[in-house]
Amino acid sequence: MTIAKAVVEFIGTFFLIFTVGMTVKTPDAAALAPLAIGSALMVMVYAGGHFSGGHYNPAVTLGVTLRGKCTWGDAIAYWIAQFAAAAAAAGAVLFIKGTGTPAPGPAAAGTTYNVAAWFLGEFLFTFALVYVVLNAATAKGTEGNSFYGLAIGFTVVVGAFAIGPVSGGAFNPAVGLGAFLMGLADPTHLIVYLLADFAGGAVAALLFLALNMGGDRP
Amino acid sequence: MTIAKAVVEFIGTFFLIFTVGMTVKTPDAAALAPLAIGSALMVMVYAGGHFSGGHYNPAVTLGVTLRGKCTWGDAIAYWIAQFAAAAAAAGAVLFIKGTGTPAPGPAAAGTTYNVAAWFLGEFLFTFALVYVVLNAATAKGTEGNSFYGLAIGFTVVVGAFAIGPVSGGAFNPAVGLGAFLMGLADPTHLIVYLLADFAGGAVAALLFLALNMGGDRP
Amino acid sequence: MTIAKAVVEFIGTFFLIFTVGMTVKTPDAAALAPLAIGSALMVMVYAGGHFSGGHYNPAVTLGVTLRGKCTWGDAIAYWIAQFAAAAAAAGAVLFIKGTGTPAPGPAAAGTTYNVAAWFLGEFLFTFALVYVVLNAATAKGTEGNSFYGLAIGFTVVVGAFAIGPVSGGAFNPAVGLGAFLMGLADPTHLIVYLLADFAGGAVAALLFLALNMGGDRP
Amino acid sequence: MTIAKAVVEFIGTFFLIFTVGMTVKTPDAAALAPLAIGSALMVMVYAGGHFSGGHYNPAVTLGVTLRGKCTWGDAIAYWIAQFAAAAAAAGAVLFIKGTGTPAPGPAAAGTTYNVAAWFLGEFLFTFALVYVVLNAATAKGTEGNSFYGLAIGFTVVVGAFAIGPVSGGAFNPAVGLGAFLMGLADPTHLIVYLLADFAGGAVAALLFLALNMGGDRP
Repeated sequence: MTIAKAVVEFIGTFFLIFTVGMTVKTPDAAALAPLAIGSALMVMVYAGGHFSGGHYNPAVTLGVTLRGKCTWGDAIAYWIAQFAAAAAAAGAVLFIKGTGTPAPGPAAAGTTYNVAAWFLGEFLFTFALVYVVLNAATAKGTEGNSFYGLAIGFTVVVGAFAIGPVSGGAFNPAVGLGAFLMGLADPTHLIVYLLADFAGGAVAALLFLALNMGGDRP
Repeated sequence: MTIAKAVVEFIGTFFLIFTVGMTVKTPDAAALAPLAIGSALMVMVYAGGHFSGGHYNPAVTLGVTLRGKCTWGDAIAYWIAQFAAAAAAAGAVLFIKGTGTPAPGPAAAGTTYNVAAWFLGEFLFTFALVYVVLNAATAKGTEGNSFYGLAIGFTVVVGAFAIGPVSGGAFNPAVGLGAFLMGLADPTHLIVYLLADFAGGAVAALLFLALNMGGDRP
Repeated sequence: MTIAKAVVEFIGTFFLIFTVGMTVKTPDAAALAPLAIGSALMVMVYAGGHFSGGHYNPAVTLGVTLRGKCTWGDAIAYWIAQFAAAAAAAGAVLFIKGTGTPAPGPAAAGTTYNVAAWFLGEFLFTFALVYVVLNAATAKGTEGNSFYGLAIGFTVVVGAFAIGPVSGGAFNPAVGLGAFLMGLADPTHLIVYLLADFAGGAVAALLFLALNMGGDRP
Repeated sequence: MTIAKAVVEFIGTFFLIFTVGMTVKTPDAAALAPLAIGSALMVMVYAGGHFSGGHYNPAVTLGVTLRGKCTWGDAIAYWIAQFAAAAAAAGAVLFIKGTGTPAPGPAAAGTTYNVAAWFLGEFLFTFALVYVVLNAATAKGTEGNSFYGLAIGFTVVVGAFAIGPVSGGAFNPAVGLGAFLMGLADPTHLIVYLLADFAGGAVAALLFLALNMGGDRP
């Protein structure tokens, strides 16, 4: 059962990161990449959420596990599947687009943001993403809703529009690894993605529990 | 309980106004800022609506309170949280983007709208926003729906496309304050945002009650 | 009761046509006008659908009445409210934008479509709109759904992208009247909007009944 | 009953492919064609899904039939209706736009992808589309949801942004035929659309069954 769920995590993470690569990496980067990427997450959450939870993001898996809706055993299997999917998606993108194209810089020409701004942006929107996931998919107050995929996917749309020019906009350590393997991010960015994104997810889960947003306590 | 709900109002308002600043303020203003801003509201309504009501807007809090679905005590706490979030979001945007960049004018080069047009535009779409909130989130005829966040968030998408070039398109006194603090709005605009937006919210609530759209009376 | 419902029809139609004028008429026409216009319809359907049915379109009112879900008495009141809202919205747009700006041509520079193409495009997408309304809002097979506003509004998004450059893309006689009053359409276009749009709505209703899509017959 | 359902399949497929032609074929190709095309699928799935299943795609019909939710008799009628709708939509587009305009190449000027890349892109996103359809519309774990049209339509939005510049982005043999008849695709592309898209749909159905995502087995 854990294996079947990990396969679903692999599929969803693969399509998320494959879409990142196909819409951000030149040639043929898309002006609406944030919409495409967030929508990729949305449709995969709607497809696989009922089966694996539809995390597709190691920081989400951390948050959901801290909140008590995923076992640590499943979490380890999910992390392996998610990072493996990042490598597979990077391979597929490089097969289609080739390796020779230079990566676009994450910030507009002539503008630079410092590493504290990267960290803050990544932390804030990964916090927002896990906060939305926990409320839309694990709280008593929203049980049986049909909006969870829309809410989760469009948090990434918003974050990518808002923070994309600053840090690249990963909000997901597996996306960070995939971007690194595709030549879209340098090692410093990868370290920020790992540290800030796991931290944002953990803080969101702890706040969710402290406020009793899940409705677990009377 | 009021404090926990006010924290949720702070979080949602923070991300709404942080997204406004990151997508409207140069450098790296986004062509699709209206979509990003309305979607930020949508995802935060879906995340926190079940807990605090998901107002994130002092004019919405006024309208919901006049309609009888929020106490005046909670309303005051919400207003404090919402305006505090505006200040915090403005600080975060200025930390990332810096204070030296000139703000873009709210209207296209060579075009000017008069202050009556600003007021009318702000009044109309804040009316629309509160009208949508009350019907989608407090009416018997729509109980248990999954569309409330989509309807509320996309009212702001529409208003920002339609009225953004005229008045800036706040439809929310806290957004108006945040825009002012970030250098995106001058004092005259701020006054219009405060007057027109509270007026629009109040009129929407009174009309909603007069028409018995909530289904409270037989 | 009919009066309260007609007020709701007036409000929804007003915001739909006000958005058309603010995003299509220069200055400050929006590149994403189709998305804004369809979303305006979506949010107003979600707000008023539970109360008046959320038609905001004389051709939809005709189709819903032929399908038996609206009385002819209500239909007449709705038509009056819808066309009155078109006049009011045109007045508000002209107040804000002024009357001196030349209207953009409906077709791209150097391209012309003939009147048969206008008629076909208008007929097809008004057919699609009423077909979607009847299935999403009046069929047994979709009772209790939360997607009706999204489906209805985005039919107009699609139609405006597909047919906008050909005929202007009204799919709604009241929108046609409003566009004419704002100087966005000439008398020939107005005649096409009236004939093709009512025809499309009627044919959709008759087909819906013939196929028993509502599930009324065993 | 099969005939009425095939009529609904014809209508939905017609509007999907008519939208493809109107937004992709010059003159007046739309920058947001992927959003328009995916939304066309979304609204038609919401309109006709309760009646025919809302396939509008021979590869989806193959996948749903392999999964056991459509009879082979219905499948044959659906395929006939879908390919006939492709021809009718191509005729309507050529009537409106004329036949003299040169088709734009599927890839950006100066960039070429090889046929293996076309095949991989088409295979992957048709797999994703059928995977989303089966989970959102035929699985016990998602019964009664209101998101199926959004999930299905936006899978095509994502695929068209991600793969459109590579292969044209059909993910649907009937769309492939329509594009060929409108002069938007050459014979080599049509062969790829037929082979890769049916293969992607079949593999998605077999994986769905192997993982027991439908919840049919205990």
